Amino acid sequence: MDPRPIGVFDSGLGGLTALRELRRLLPGEELIYFGDTGRVPYGGKGREIIQHYARQDVAFLRSFDPKAIIIACGTVSANALTELSAENDLPIFGVVGPAAQAAAGATRSGKVGVIATAASIRSGAYEREIARLDPSLTVFPQACPLFVPLVENGRFRPGDQVVELVAEEYLAPLRHAGVDTLVLGCTHYPLLRDVVGKVMGGNVTLIDTGAACAAAAVQCLEEQGLLARRETGSCRYFVSDSPQDFARLAGIFLGEEAQGSVERIEIEKY
Amino acid sequence: MDPRPIGVFDSGLGGLTALRELRRLLPGEELIYFGDTGRVPYGGKGREIIQHYARQDVAFLRSFDPKAIIIACGTVSANALTELSAENDLPIFGVVGPAAQAAAGATRSGKVGVIATAASIRSGAYEREIARLDPSLTVFPQACPLFVPLVENGRFRPGDQVVELVAEEYLAPLRHAGVDTLVLGCTHYPLLRDVVGKVMGGNVTLIDTGAACAAAAVQCLEEQGLLARRETGSCRYFVSDSPQDFARLAGIFLGEEAQGSVERIEIEKY
Repeated sequence: MDPRPIGVFDSGLGGLTALRELRRLLPGEELIYFGDTGRVPYGGKGREIIQHYARQDVAFLRSFDPKAIIIACGTVSANALTELSAENDLPIFGVVGPAAQAAAGATRSGKVGVIATAASIRSGAYEREIARLDPSLTVFPQACPLFVPLVENGRFRPGDQVVELVAEEYLAPLRHAGVDTLVLGCTHYPLLRDVVGKVMGGNVTLIDTGAACAAAAVQCLEEQGLLARRETGSCRYFVSDSPQDFARLAGIFLGEEAQGSVERIEIEKY
Repeated sequence: MDPRPIGVFDSGLGGLTALRELRRLLPGEELIYFGDTGRVPYGGKGREIIQHYARQDVAFLRSFDPKAIIIACGTVSANALTELSAENDLPIFGVVGPAAQAAAGATRSGKVGVIATAASIRSGAYEREIARLDPSLTVFPQACPLFVPLVENGRFRPGDQVVELVAEEYLAPLRHAGVDTLVLGCTHYPLLRDVVGKVMGGNVTLIDTGAACAAAAVQCLEEQGLLARRETGSCRYFVSDSPQDFARLAGIFLGEEAQGSVERIEIEKY
């Protein structure tokens, strides 16, 4: 039993889709969420700067003495998990491994699609991890650089012509390749589930990376006896841009109004 | 006569459209360009964080002892010019004033449209400046939050279905309002000139903020005897993300390959 908090971070607010799942699975935990809204998005940036930002994000969360940290961000998981794990003496969970495992378990045709940010796809992390789990699988990676700006502008609902047109374009190669499983490799993408599902068709299994990561982290913490086992938990939110903008957007990702305090911090000091 | 360099900065690479014009007008000057590619875009962020970043951008450029600084960024000009001018004892030029002047001079119908980032439109800076110049003019502001991500992903050419659909949507209210002059209030937007022109029709005058700002700055420096009057100038580029990505994108904005060195700096140290 460990009463310390669990730290969760993302380049922005997409990671709240993972936090939501974590709260559902672990209602008694104390969660600290940091969204780097002042420097969002990470997905179009270079590997070196992503690692630099991720180190600051982890350093900030470590100021709360957490028992574990969850990288609720596909881009950071794909570009910095190895380094962060080597540099920190506490469990750090990324989204790539759990999502790869879920995809390898779900596919029947052996053809798995991965959609993610440009930086995630360029890293090759999803392909490597899926190949490690089952070398017989074929992975079809597709960068979707406009998906994050579209979601952050509230453009993710079926019927929105722009997002449907962009999804058609990005997903056409994967549909033609005949993938039966598709990893939504960015924590913003669960909001696009309906649009993506409509384009890919009902027979394609969509893997939610945030949910897969939350489930894997919970299992691991349980095995190590690190859960708090409280009746009621809590959540505190920190951002690097204005808390007002957070409040406006957070509900979209959480599916409900954010409960708990929201504070702005200066992340570049960490 | 003043041999010192001129500093130019933007949240990213859009400001290169202004730099290009500056080099055309002042081939003998030494220009220092900083693009904050590690934190781009600014246009969706809050005023406070935009001012914080802009102060760091100016502090970095001041390390070269410049004779003047040009804010080649609509979002920073609209949200931080007053503060930066008050805090610095050298001429600082923004894009809002010159663009407003050009628009006020061009309109015949008295109806002026302004398209810009969400942060620029929210600031009301273009409206205030145009009203100050001529209170009889009516301004129609329109935030276009997807334009910057589209341009940064190379999606700005006529025939690109996505950018044409987005432009149709954003510009419809301005077309219906009957504006005869439209301020392209972000230095990324000159690349969208053909797409915007196609939607608005040939009778609408498009104002390029970067070019208007460059022209105004040159006139002012000339009047104050601050030009260098060299035969051949130079340009040095600095970015906060990888120089490789800069090289790939810069040509789009400059209309030619970038000549001159490119270095990465750690902007958060300033």
